[in-house]
Amino acid sequence: MGLVVQKYGGTSVGNVARIRDVAKKVVEARRAGDGVVVVVSAMAGETDRLIRLAREVTERPNAREMDMLVSTGEQVSIALLAMAIQSLGELAESFTGEQVGILTDSAYTKARIKKISADRLREALKEGKIAVVAGFQGVDERRNVTTLGRGGSDTTAVAMAVALQADRCEIYTDVDGVYTADPSIVPDARRLDKVSYEEMLELASMGAKVLQTRSVEFAKKYEMPILVKSTFMGGQGTLVTREDQDMEQVVVSGVAYAKDQAKVTVVGVPDRPGIAAKIFGRIAEENIVVDMIIQNVSERGLTDISFTVPKSDAIQALEIVKEVATEIGAQEVTLDDRIAKVSIVGVGMRGHSGVASQMFQALARENINIMMISTSEIKVSCVIEAKYAELAVRVLHDAFGLGEGRPEVKEV
Amino acid sequence: MGLVVQKYGGTSVGNVARIRDVAKKVVEARRAGDGVVVVVSAMAGETDRLIRLAREVTERPNAREMDMLVSTGEQVSIALLAMAIQSLGELAESFTGEQVGILTDSAYTKARIKKISADRLREALKEGKIAVVAGFQGVDERRNVTTLGRGGSDTTAVAMAVALQADRCEIYTDVDGVYTADPSIVPDARRLDKVSYEEMLELASMGAKVLQTRSVEFAKKYEMPILVKSTFMGGQGTLVTREDQDMEQVVVSGVAYAKDQAKVTVVGVPDRPGIAAKIFGRIAEENIVVDMIIQNVSERGLTDISFTVPKSDAIQALEIVKEVATEIGAQEVTLDDRIAKVSIVGVGMRGHSGVASQMFQALARENINIMMISTSEIKVSCVIEAKYAELAVRVLHDAFGLGEGRPEVKEV
Repeated sequence: MGLVVQKYGGTSVGNVARIRDVAKKVVEARRAGDGVVVVVSAMAGETDRLIRLAREVTERPNAREMDMLVSTGEQVSIALLAMAIQSLGELAESFTGEQVGILTDSAYTKARIKKISADRLREALKEGKIAVVAGFQGVDERRNVTTLGRGGSDTTAVAMAVALQADRCEIYTDVDGVYTADPSIVPDARRLDKVSYEEMLELASMGAKVLQTRSVEFAKKYEMPILVKSTFMGGQGTLVTREDQDMEQVVVSGVAYAKDQAKVTVVGVPDRPGIAAKIFGRIAEENIVVDMIIQNVSERGLTDISFTVPKSDAIQALEIVKEVATEIGAQEVTLDDRIAKVSIVGVGMRGHSGVASQMFQALARENINIMMISTSEIKVSCVIEAKYAELAVRVLHDAFGLGEGRPEVKEV
Repeated sequence: MGLVVQKYGGTSVGNVARIRDVAKKVVEARRAGDGVVVVVSAMAGETDRLIRLAREVTERPNAREMDMLVSTGEQVSIALLAMAIQSLGELAESFTGEQVGILTDSAYTKARIKKISADRLREALKEGKIAVVAGFQGVDERRNVTTLGRGGSDTTAVAMAVALQADRCEIYTDVDGVYTADPSIVPDARRLDKVSYEEMLELASMGAKVLQTRSVEFAKKYEMPILVKSTFMGGQGTLVTREDQDMEQVVVSGVAYAKDQAKVTVVGVPDRPGIAAKIFGRIAEENIVVDMIIQNVSERGLTDISFTVPKSDAIQALEIVKEVATEIGAQEVTLDDRIAKVSIVGVGMRGHSGVASQMFQALARENINIMMISTSEIKVSCVIEAKYAELAVRVLHDAFGLGEGRPEVKEV
């Protein structure tokens, strides 16, 4: 008998009718002979409703209490889904993060899993039960309720699959897989049958909302295959797995973009050692994640430093940097939040030179100015003006031949 | 420094504005110098909303999953109240039943508290925090979530007060105390300043919804004084405490009625030893609580047995009894759910004969037929047709001189 972990997101359990549909799918998998663990999110809208309640109470809700509050959303889902499964004649039992032994650190609202002791789950499975597990939540060492951050249910699912040594982890969502680009922007975007963990990581961190980044990291670390499928449409889905021969033959697997960043520029920085450390040290202290950093060529002992941060942290970053700027005698600090980052991603890039320049040329042909560039082994990202984001994605999707009807395996 | 446990019901925390008001009251008590533990129910309507969801999923929701589901209601309340208290500048921390160490048996939806290990609460209090505790819930030995039955938050509050050796337990509700009768039926009903545990028990079990029966049993056992007060109106409230001289001088303290029972009659039961044990043994196995039992005089070796059970369990009881009836060769089983139980209650009854007959006479004067009678030391109850319930209460309230403006201390 195999073991499969299935995860259903908030839209998939958005109302009672949908919960019943999910129950049917789960029962099907069980009757096909597999042991089944189902991880579910809160019903769509529920988490937001709870957050709104908290904000009505106070502008700055305490993080511990916030987790106590929002974790109820998943608890409602697991109870209802367990009932629905039982009503179809199968045994089922629901479990909170605490009951399932998900131990996290105490970083409320963005906790990280430290340990999973899935004994109770194993027992339930042995008794032939379908285990219904609350995604997104755990407890710290003092048994305070914690949550794993938005999308954390993916991480719960992958972590459970790893802990139980499941055969695979199936993530059911409202799209039918991972695409070469966002289909709402690029009409001929193509679903990928397979994508490597590394590529998925780059795509996820770039705003492809199919999977939470951390869940992919987890899967990569333990080589747990993830199958991303649609709850509603069926289809074959996309397998996220380790890199193989096929993948390497495709130079670029996908194009992604993100508009959630803002650019901060410190103008006229004295070009002395330790200045960058001072700026970014202070920002790191506030737990603000800096993505790209660029330092211009120094002129007359002065240099400009630009970097990007999440838009939600931009004002705070600006204030911090203004303080530092005064201390170090920089001339000015500016903020630009009308930027976008477009990226091309592909493990096949490794063996190929010229991919980056091909990207720059494609953008140049449309007169799209590149403000910042960053590269990794399997990714090239450019920061451009936000208004060109969609155009840039289409242009790149086309330039690298990713469209429907074109051969998937392609040398550039 | 004293220690007070306050409990606020669902209406008191029915929306964000009210939660803020409760926070103010709690903070006042804290600033007056007492350690404060607050027990709260789910926001008014929330438990019903969750139950409706469950019934949409399945007609017969599993009891374990039901508890998993409805316990989220209190969890939402504690988080929001803790936030509200914090926003007023006091330290607060919320705790689920599990976190606060409320260990119960595994009788889902009507679990009983077995043990409380309030170490974590003591610690929070020592740190100067206001502890906000989820009422109504606990966990069994395997850490399955359990609930204590409707109104169970009262029991949580009293049990916490006992475990922490609090000075008193204050129950805030939407009425300003315990009345001689339901004021919506008897306009001149009078608020009692004091009532004994025993009387309160009889009144509570009779449907006076001010306090859950079990909470009063708990308070009685450990002699924890309960002060019942209104959240909204202020006032002196009613002190539920141990019997004293004053109380004994009043023969009847209150009149109560309940319409939540149904009567099951087994007709033509062979009058052999062990039959009753068989019937009620089987019913007890299903955790159905039988209230009154009457066995008629035997004729030709056959007898009739009538008993009352909660309406919600009536169909199940009927089915069980029908099975047993076939086994033992009884003739017929009937169900009557249009009944009401009216009771007079008073510790002063003990010393007085003729109270029961005075009650029967009063009902007879209005031509109200009595179907069943049961008596205890401090109570006489009659089962009558449901349609006469309110009339009977008014008649009895008057017959025993309980009205407003009459002296509270009164000999009959």
